[in-house]
Amino acid sequence: MKSIVIHAAKDLRIENQTAAAPGPGEVQINIASGGICGSDLHYYNHGGFGTVRLREPMVLGHEVSGHVAALGEGVDSLRVGQLVAVSPSRPCGDCRYCQAGMQNQCLNMRFYGSAMPFPHIQGAFRQVLVANAVQCAPADGLTSGEAAMAEPLAVCLHATRNAGPMLGKSVLVTGCGPIGVLAILCARRAGADQIVATDLSDFTLNMARNAGADTVFNMSDASDAMAGFSADKGHFDVLFECSGAQAALAGAIPAMRPGGVIVQLGLSGDMTLPMMAVTAKELQLRGSFRFHQEFFTGVSLMQKGLIDVKPLITHTLPLTEAVTAFELASDRSQTMKAQLDFAQT
Amino acid sequence: MKSIVIHAAKDLRIENQTAAAPGPGEVQINIASGGICGSDLHYYNHGGFGTVRLREPMVLGHEVSGHVAALGEGVDSLRVGQLVAVSPSRPCGDCRYCQAGMQNQCLNMRFYGSAMPFPHIQGAFRQVLVANAVQCAPADGLTSGEAAMAEPLAVCLHATRNAGPMLGKSVLVTGCGPIGVLAILCARRAGADQIVATDLSDFTLNMARNAGADTVFNMSDASDAMAGFSADKGHFDVLFECSGAQAALAGAIPAMRPGGVIVQLGLSGDMTLPMMAVTAKELQLRGSFRFHQEFFTGVSLMQKGLIDVKPLITHTLPLTEAVTAFELASDRSQTMKAQLDFAQT
Amino acid sequence: MKSIVIHAAKDLRIENQTAAAPGPGEVQINIASGGICGSDLHYYNHGGFGTVRLREPMVLGHEVSGHVAALGEGVDSLRVGQLVAVSPSRPCGDCRYCQAGMQNQCLNMRFYGSAMPFPHIQGAFRQVLVANAVQCAPADGLTSGEAAMAEPLAVCLHATRNAGPMLGKSVLVTGCGPIGVLAILCARRAGADQIVATDLSDFTLNMARNAGADTVFNMSDASDAMAGFSADKGHFDVLFECSGAQAALAGAIPAMRPGGVIVQLGLSGDMTLPMMAVTAKELQLRGSFRFHQEFFTGVSLMQKGLIDVKPLITHTLPLTEAVTAFELASDRSQTMKAQLDFAQT
Amino acid sequence: MKSIVIHAAKDLRIENQTAAAPGPGEVQINIASGGICGSDLHYYNHGGFGTVRLREPMVLGHEVSGHVAALGEGVDSLRVGQLVAVSPSRPCGDCRYCQAGMQNQCLNMRFYGSAMPFPHIQGAFRQVLVANAVQCAPADGLTSGEAAMAEPLAVCLHATRNAGPMLGKSVLVTGCGPIGVLAILCARRAGADQIVATDLSDFTLNMARNAGADTVFNMSDASDAMAGFSADKGHFDVLFECSGAQAALAGAIPAMRPGGVIVQLGLSGDMTLPMMAVTAKELQLRGSFRFHQEFFTGVSLMQKGLIDVKPLITHTLPLTEAVTAFELASDRSQTMKAQLDFAQT
Repeated sequence: MKSIVIHAAKDLRIENQTAAAPGPGEVQINIASGGICGSDLHYYNHGGFGTVRLREPMVLGHEVSGHVAALGEGVDSLRVGQLVAVSPSRPCGDCRYCQAGMQNQCLNMRFYGSAMPFPHIQGAFRQVLVANAVQCAPADGLTSGEAAMAEPLAVCLHATRNAGPMLGKSVLVTGCGPIGVLAILCARRAGADQIVATDLSDFTLNMARNAGADTVFNMSDASDAMAGFSADKGHFDVLFECSGAQAALAGAIPAMRPGGVIVQLGLSGDMTLPMMAVTAKELQLRGSFRFHQEFFTGVSLMQKGLIDVKPLITHTLPLTEAVTAFELASDRSQTMKAQLDFAQT
Repeated sequence: MKSIVIHAAKDLRIENQTAAAPGPGEVQINIASGGICGSDLHYYNHGGFGTVRLREPMVLGHEVSGHVAALGEGVDSLRVGQLVAVSPSRPCGDCRYCQAGMQNQCLNMRFYGSAMPFPHIQGAFRQVLVANAVQCAPADGLTSGEAAMAEPLAVCLHATRNAGPMLGKSVLVTGCGPIGVLAILCARRAGADQIVATDLSDFTLNMARNAGADTVFNMSDASDAMAGFSADKGHFDVLFECSGAQAALAGAIPAMRPGGVIVQLGLSGDMTLPMMAVTAKELQLRGSFRFHQEFFTGVSLMQKGLIDVKPLITHTLPLTEAVTAFELASDRSQTMKAQLDFAQT
Repeated sequence: MKSIVIHAAKDLRIENQTAAAPGPGEVQINIASGGICGSDLHYYNHGGFGTVRLREPMVLGHEVSGHVAALGEGVDSLRVGQLVAVSPSRPCGDCRYCQAGMQNQCLNMRFYGSAMPFPHIQGAFRQVLVANAVQCAPADGLTSGEAAMAEPLAVCLHATRNAGPMLGKSVLVTGCGPIGVLAILCARRAGADQIVATDLSDFTLNMARNAGADTVFNMSDASDAMAGFSADKGHFDVLFECSGAQAALAGAIPAMRPGGVIVQLGLSGDMTLPMMAVTAKELQLRGSFRFHQEFFTGVSLMQKGLIDVKPLITHTLPLTEAVTAFELASDRSQTMKAQLDFAQT
Repeated sequence: MKSIVIHAAKDLRIENQTAAAPGPGEVQINIASGGICGSDLHYYNHGGFGTVRLREPMVLGHEVSGHVAALGEGVDSLRVGQLVAVSPSRPCGDCRYCQAGMQNQCLNMRFYGSAMPFPHIQGAFRQVLVANAVQCAPADGLTSGEAAMAEPLAVCLHATRNAGPMLGKSVLVTGCGPIGVLAILCARRAGADQIVATDLSDFTLNMARNAGADTVFNMSDASDAMAGFSADKGHFDVLFECSGAQAALAGAIPAMRPGGVIVQLGLSGDMTLPMMAVTAKELQLRGSFRFHQEFFTGVSLMQKGLIDVKPLITHTLPLTEAVTAFELASDRSQTMKAQLDFAQT
């Protein structure tokens, strides 16, 4: 079976590997769809990000779905042939964070396709994957492409929980890549009243509007858009900062009302904040990282038609065109989510 | 202009009154629609409830909408002819609860159509109403019937906030009158994943299902329905208790998971609770009463099509048929929400 | 070595048992002190409570401390001779509640001295106990009596957490047995401003006052004491209901301010609540049950002198006088906490 | 009567002004003590801070206490001669933040001695002050110096509330000026278990230790002190950042556990944050600004002996030596809180 292996920046190879058999509690899955995420792109384009660098070849990928091919001993919650979304989150269950219900902060996390520990945690862009049954969310009724969106959706559901009560709130989303647009869907699903989105690309802003944003601003043209929301100490209850750009965060702060919550989703390096405003308006800046149970919640919400991610999947390419897909995914002016079709070779 | 005045149980009269002119900060409104609420029915059928008794004639009604007829001095946020939903909540703004942001607990509340203080607070079932501009939510784009639903919707939005985070939660609703069905709409809007509803009437349960309940149980036939949710200490994260019936509350407790939240919405007399289970499972029983800002939130959510209350309005009768409407509204086997048309005489 | 075994109501025996050796991760402890708890008394006086009944002989006791006698393989966090408080809470670590950080709700809990499952979970009133090292809180600097108070202290720390923010709050405590008095100590430690306590016994109320209650009421003499706190919808932010008596709970409700929190600590049977007041004032009734990490927190707070439990230990008897101790502990007019001295035979 | 008026940086004058008479709801107060705050020092040393600049002469001061000299019409909650702490917080009560219970964010705040609006809000460093009765907290039993500490104490009580539950938590305090040391007192009062404090001055660290810090580090000598708390993703639950120094904030982040809360109290300019760590550990950075009801809470806690601020008052000088006092207060190597004695001239 074939895997997608990153060796170094711009050195992505399709390699043959041997499929493993499922052990007790495990299932063997024929991967159907795999979405390319921003961190995959960092490995592909730069060989890593920040201090996280590739030190050995690594199978990429952590947004995958597929059909159950074989059940390991003792697995009776799934059936052969069933479509499942596979959670890439594999916490240890025993460390103090797992035991506190914060599995996304597990000290021994083995998240697919991550170069953070060494040896690296190999990823899920492979035709045959053996996973624990507890990682698998039955996805009957979804397309495999939708099911593969469960991972970034979970990121945004987790962020929405971190943002606190959403019902009736005014929400600003800065940065409308896949995470930003999914944040719009999640905020709306959680009861946000007004949603405003900003970006520098009309392509992504159009997606944002279709996902439910009431108003969108292309900050290239409307650099003073936030001024309209800044009277009387500000307007927005919640900001989902999905751009990782300091200008977006700093620019939004005058538009946040006192006590407002800023959820930082976009991974970034150092950022300079206007701390006087943060302090005087008692803003709350909260990091949000990965997810745990939200993976299963997201699949259920998609199955019920309560969240529709299909419009975000703008490109689907066969596994053999992986390099093209990675190049395409790197171009935010025309691509929202690019997925690989692992069945089509 | 005509008003609907309750004199005693079953003594409801349509009377002529003189329309007032709007003072500074006030507006005069030609009332269009008025919904009949459970408390209106208590006055009509029983002359009050608990220790709250009619002691003088009182105009009924607190679920109303209408068109602005005249603007008092200094009102520039509304325009003549505009449809508005009128909040019946008139807190003083100065007492310690108002100053703590708990206006629904105002010590000097003047809520329309309430016999709680004496002299009673006269209600809004009248053809011409003078209200403060701040009570009026512009309702452009809604029907007057929808706008008149803003009040019970606000009750349920407030209850949903009281319930805490809703995203991805499993919710049980006991009692599917207008409050129960609106609670389903609100829970879904706030991101609930699974919603189960119970009642004793197939008519209301059908409404519940159409409003978004995944599963409904008629407890007349399925008295053991909760047993299926009671394994491993229970299943539901949240219960909206909208029946006011002790059997419903006590019966649901085994199906609540540890730490689950019970929001009591149905006003009732004394209730006997299995405190051993409440304590051992660390359940949280929270009362919910009226609303404040949620009135305006609800109008906005309806305007955006994010909550649809129209199917709940099962009957609309002209003002002149008020007695028929009150009788009809008392019959839960065929009526969800009965409204009066104040323009049609 | 000797154990205290309950066979049936009023049939308490001191029996010889064989001491076990510690396995990997375990320690052998020479028990020094053991406090008699309300549930021990239920078994002793009534053979159980509610549906929980003795079905086989059971070693009682879950409030114990002792000195490490031997270390099992791999234990390096403790040393022989060290005083430890032993947590009776033994959750499985794997069930969904453990994995959610709610270990006190573990589906497979093995809490010392509990007849809830069958075979019963044998208790800790024995001269030699083998426990997991992770159950042991080093208690250097404390007396063994204080260390044995870590368990009921943890119950009250957990309840205080459940009550929410305490800084500057007005707190009412109904029922001043050991749990009530410890709740006073915890509420004060967590920053309560005003603490009022009620009971029917001058003996316990005197303890309450010494523990920090600003005002105490003997409800035998001052049955209308709550009326003074009931104006303007009530006064107290928090109620710790530690009596398990319906009269105490119902009587306190008019004195609770809107939005107030009632933490139910006293296990009891069914209770009838004035639901109209609960709903209209939006009170929150929260059960609180056992504890988990708070056991270690409590030991640390005692070691720093931030909570002083010594005055509560009113009686210490040798193991051989266990029956006398149980009789004494049942008499709330003269006993706060009675402890057994396992070293003194 | 004399006032302390700032005209420009280093131009502080004692001037004669006419005492006003109290109107309805007001009281006339003979000011006894006035504490010099960091913002007073900014005006004195620099003529302002950030964009807030002196544009006209302004009476300084907002930490004052005094004795009631005369009661205005309708004031019956105070008596002539009574010591009161005077809250400098004067919100409008009507704006949307006041009506939401966020009076410290009032859009029309008139906080004593503040150059933020123009004309400036004149301060309270004057021998005779007329204030609203609702600003006055009866301070019987306190010294006037203690009563004048109610204001900075309130700042720290508010910050402690913003920090969330404190019982049993590990707390780090960076910066041990008056706000830092009061934060230690408040954290301890609210139930913190472990408190670690850092500063660059042995003088302030000694104060911190006396106030209850378990461990203190002079970062001049122990620049790697935080490394000891940074294993396994960090240690502290809460950080009170009271230095306003970027190095303190950035240096503490590796020592914060996932989900930890950082309360920013020290007003500062822009700060650069390691956002990757904030995001990946899901830290929460919360601004905290001024206070409201906490002013009265603080007086009550001091009266009960639950918080002792007396050791912080290191210097008391007569009004006539105001300039000396301001110079002294600017020297953190020997001054914690310097107060002026307005009665002694």
